[in-house]
Amino acid sequence: MAVGLQAPRHILPVAGVRLGVAEAGIRYANRRDLTLIHLAAETQVTGVFTRNRFCAAPVLVARRHLTMARGVRALIINTGNANAGTGRAGLQAAEASCRVVAQYLGCLPEAVLPFSTGVIGESTALAEKIAAVLPDCVEQLAETRWEEAAAAIMTTDTIAKACSRQVDIDGVTITVTGMAKGSGMIRPDMATLLAYIATDAPLQGVALQRCLQEAVAQSFNRITVDGDTSTNDACILMATGHAALSPIAAVTDPRYAGLRDAVTAVAQWLAQAIVRDGEGATKFIPIQICGGRDEGECLRVAYRMAHSPLIKTAFFASDPNWGRLLAAIGSAGVDDLAVDGVQVWLGETRIVRDGARDPEYTEAAGRAVMAQAEIPVRVDLGRGSAEAQIWTCDLSYDYVRINADYRS
Amino acid sequence: MAVGLQAPRHILPVAGVRLGVAEAGIRYANRRDLTLIHLAAETQVTGVFTRNRFCAAPVLVARRHLTMARGVRALIINTGNANAGTGRAGLQAAEASCRVVAQYLGCLPEAVLPFSTGVIGESTALAEKIAAVLPDCVEQLAETRWEEAAAAIMTTDTIAKACSRQVDIDGVTITVTGMAKGSGMIRPDMATLLAYIATDAPLQGVALQRCLQEAVAQSFNRITVDGDTSTNDACILMATGHAALSPIAAVTDPRYAGLRDAVTAVAQWLAQAIVRDGEGATKFIPIQICGGRDEGECLRVAYRMAHSPLIKTAFFASDPNWGRLLAAIGSAGVDDLAVDGVQVWLGETRIVRDGARDPEYTEAAGRAVMAQAEIPVRVDLGRGSAEAQIWTCDLSYDYVRINADYRS
Repeated sequence: MAVGLQAPRHILPVAGVRLGVAEAGIRYANRRDLTLIHLAAETQVTGVFTRNRFCAAPVLVARRHLTMARGVRALIINTGNANAGTGRAGLQAAEASCRVVAQYLGCLPEAVLPFSTGVIGESTALAEKIAAVLPDCVEQLAETRWEEAAAAIMTTDTIAKACSRQVDIDGVTITVTGMAKGSGMIRPDMATLLAYIATDAPLQGVALQRCLQEAVAQSFNRITVDGDTSTNDACILMATGHAALSPIAAVTDPRYAGLRDAVTAVAQWLAQAIVRDGEGATKFIPIQICGGRDEGECLRVAYRMAHSPLIKTAFFASDPNWGRLLAAIGSAGVDDLAVDGVQVWLGETRIVRDGARDPEYTEAAGRAVMAQAEIPVRVDLGRGSAEAQIWTCDLSYDYVRINADYRS
Repeated sequence: MAVGLQAPRHILPVAGVRLGVAEAGIRYANRRDLTLIHLAAETQVTGVFTRNRFCAAPVLVARRHLTMARGVRALIINTGNANAGTGRAGLQAAEASCRVVAQYLGCLPEAVLPFSTGVIGESTALAEKIAAVLPDCVEQLAETRWEEAAAAIMTTDTIAKACSRQVDIDGVTITVTGMAKGSGMIRPDMATLLAYIATDAPLQGVALQRCLQEAVAQSFNRITVDGDTSTNDACILMATGHAALSPIAAVTDPRYAGLRDAVTAVAQWLAQAIVRDGEGATKFIPIQICGGRDEGECLRVAYRMAHSPLIKTAFFASDPNWGRLLAAIGSAGVDDLAVDGVQVWLGETRIVRDGARDPEYTEAAGRAVMAQAEIPVRVDLGRGSAEAQIWTCDLSYDYVRINADYRS
């Protein structure tokens, strides 16, 4: 069902990052549900996490381990169980998982970051299940297993999501490769569901953190499927430094911008892939708002449209129901909006001119745009020069079916 | 499909309020789509309206006529066309409709309030269509036609909504009767879709306005179906003063509270009826939040839950998926929420105790509550004494079907 999305191909390994997957039977038998990422020594790691107050136990543990700044050597990711809403027992399970991995790899438990995704609020013998299959996972570790790992972290995703970009920095080819999972409960707030991006560039310190923040701001923090913010969102950036470049630690370093753009490109591709594979999605909808007084009001209008069930069902029906667009724009909290300054386009077709139906608009033209699988919406608020873009999808029967069936 | 709702019966006439309906062919043939409400001289009228910036032409005209305070003698309500997003031509159509009615009834055009509901953004020869059937409408005018009027103002409603209450004030029986329509695009902001409440009490001035405001705050402003705010919301309170009581003009009048409570009871019944008949609704869900620091944060948590597609689909599936409840509570913007102070009940069953699954909770108990057609949700935030209650419904296949089919 994913809109314009194909299974990952030509994913480039990142020197110093090895991956392994296993069947741990966390929730279902006969599926790969455990992923181990092993990092070369000295790899620099940073992350952003969900702001949901009911954040999951592994989020608490991963955040704490990161702030201890004693170096990260491994990430252990399970699907099938979110280990959220599990109280003290959940925290103990997340910590025990780290100890199991640390013992096997010969590192400190604090050098392991745990991640979980799946059903909220159920307990499971996580550490024991991980311990049972960890030898298998470690044995397979290889730099070439990104596609398998991207598949192993999925929940309701219908397709694995991974991509690579390369950029030339001072004559050295730098690789950025990332993978992500997520399909529902998608309205990240400072993070996304699970996303892992690695590079062989020697990014460090502030430059590493800022690189991730800037990339996330233009990617995972610009998407929504259903407006629901997960308890388990996390996005991790890993820089092994295996490329033959001197360290990049400051954002003023002339090499920083090119790297950030490459990381942003990977993050944006992954974020859009999550929307394209949004639960039940049949349409991919970029929403661009311009002419605002500030970015904040542009985003308010964009998200108001993206979260309107009436607009999302109209897109599903390929119905150019522009009245619903106006109703959403008008109730987005821009209280002094002069409606006769508002223009709205579907694709290249202007449907609203100066706040009312464009006299030249025809239903046939609207239907032609709406029949496409990708439907760009553009709104000019006519009151400033700020702009913002987000990406969303439609609301279909299948969204209801998936979420009425699935216990998340 | 409406949850626990039956067609109006025993609707009591209000002395001084006569109603008539007609088939004007606004959008569909062979259906009553026009309602005229004729008010006795000296009837006092007040209203609250949508805050959507793209409010409809009739909302602009009705608001202006009300502020002119020259007395209101008639309300003209059409369904099938919202006359919103129609620019200058729409305004002219709304004003022409008032002139047509005024001419026929022998009053000023400013004494007529116009209301429209239906498809947004399409023009129609509204005044001409009204003129053609107005004689028919006037001929039928009677105090006993509330049920017919309640049916004639419907759009995607599956059932007409009207109710009456009586209250004894100083030995005089006062009647309050109201009707409303609305099923989708329901997240009123200071008003609802269309609601008309009449009483024979001699409410006047500030007491009349405050009575409506207080009633709306506890009824139409406490419901949501899909979070979408209509362009056409309006709620009107009419007081004919035909009951044998001296005028009630101040909220300090000892008779005020009893009247306000009766009006609030009617408004609350109508508001809940709108949710019970929400598009595709199969469940009616009162959400009560207590233990907040202030009412605002209680409402934020309540609406966050009520607008979560994941929660709404879980209710549709009768799935006690309490992890989704926690995820919504945790992302409702109460940034310093201590999660281990949170308790959650479904009906009388406690599912979350001190922020995690209640050890005594069983899936069977949760399923038993979720199988009911009415599922009260109660959350104690454990940080204060404020509380708030709202009402919502689930999200079903039929919501998608209705809104993928219907051009609103």
